Amino acid sequence: MGHKLENTIALLERTPGALDALLRGMPEVWTETGEGGDTWSVSTVIAHLIHCEDVDWMVRARHILEVGESEPFAALDREGHVRFGRGKTLAQMLDEFALARAKNLDELRALNLTAQDLERRGRHPALGSVTLAELLATWAAHDLTHLHQISRIMAHQVREAVGPWARFLGVMQCAGHSEAG
Amino acid sequence: MGHKLENTIALLERTPGALDALLRGMPEVWTETGEGGDTWSVSTVIAHLIHCEDVDWMVRARHILEVGESEPFAALDREGHVRFGRGKTLAQMLDEFALARAKNLDELRALNLTAQDLERRGRHPALGSVTLAELLATWAAHDLTHLHQISRIMAHQVREAVGPWARFLGVMQCAGHSEAG
Repeated sequence: MGHKLENTIALLERTPGALDALLRGMPEVWTETGEGGDTWSVSTVIAHLIHCEDVDWMVRARHILEVGESEPFAALDREGHVRFGRGKTLAQMLDEFALARAKNLDELRALNLTAQDLERRGRHPALGSVTLAELLATWAAHDLTHLHQISRIMAHQVREAVGPWARFLGVMQCAGHSEAG
Repeated sequence: MGHKLENTIALLERTPGALDALLRGMPEVWTETGEGGDTWSVSTVIAHLIHCEDVDWMVRARHILEVGESEPFAALDREGHVRFGRGKTLAQMLDEFALARAKNLDELRALNLTAQDLERRGRHPALGSVTLAELLATWAAHDLTHLHQISRIMAHQVREAVGPWARFLGVMQCAGHSEAG
């Protein structure tokens, strides 16, 4: 499909509830351990999602509408989520993500974007010229890339426990890790 | 972690609610289209999850406890989900999955499995000797592999719409497709 704002919003408004249903009250063995080394745990991913609500999507959308391409988007602090996660329980972060998302979607809807607005352009510091439509589609796809990552991190925790079945489970062969971006 | 029954159950009991929160009421562009060719849509995945509740996990668990290794598990009908999906809406299938899962977890809890039971063995037609603990961990990992697949199928629908951001999104580089299993 091309970018349709109502389809993007349909996903964006469901992600917090889906993560809440999956993760609230889960034993910490599923949520506080990464995939080895300094890889992210599920909790780290939720902190990152909150951070992006704060500094990425709607900030860049407003930049496109107010500044356009004349100045690039501010670069993101790749470690900014650490600030958001410090001292918080996963349950607190799930609440915080739901609130931040709802607030951003209220702002997005209030913009009453037209088809013409969606073609307006900004400048990404690494990717160059991008449209508002691309930014908003990426907001939804970013939820999906982290849902994908969360399922892979959790599956990693039972990699040994499944014994010979590991070779039948696609998630255990996944190498689809995101670059910074 | 090794296999701990309460951790496995914690995931198994959350998956239907998480999929419901993500998918119920979603525009069909997200749920009824696959990744090209004859690949599965999100709806097909839900039909497959229902089918597995019916013919796989608890059927094999009982086989291990009642028959052991003397006879292999019955082979699964890889197309059995088609039967379950025919003529049903996604909303109906989400209800059906939640009911089937709840019923199976009731049965699992009623078995009051001991550590010794979890080491009992059955014979998989392709993988050979497997333990009950491995089977139950695989039930949970199978939820995760399909959550991983669902997020990838959905991301596929906005592959063009995200424009240059595609290269930053891990889910769009995923090649972690499950074999039949």
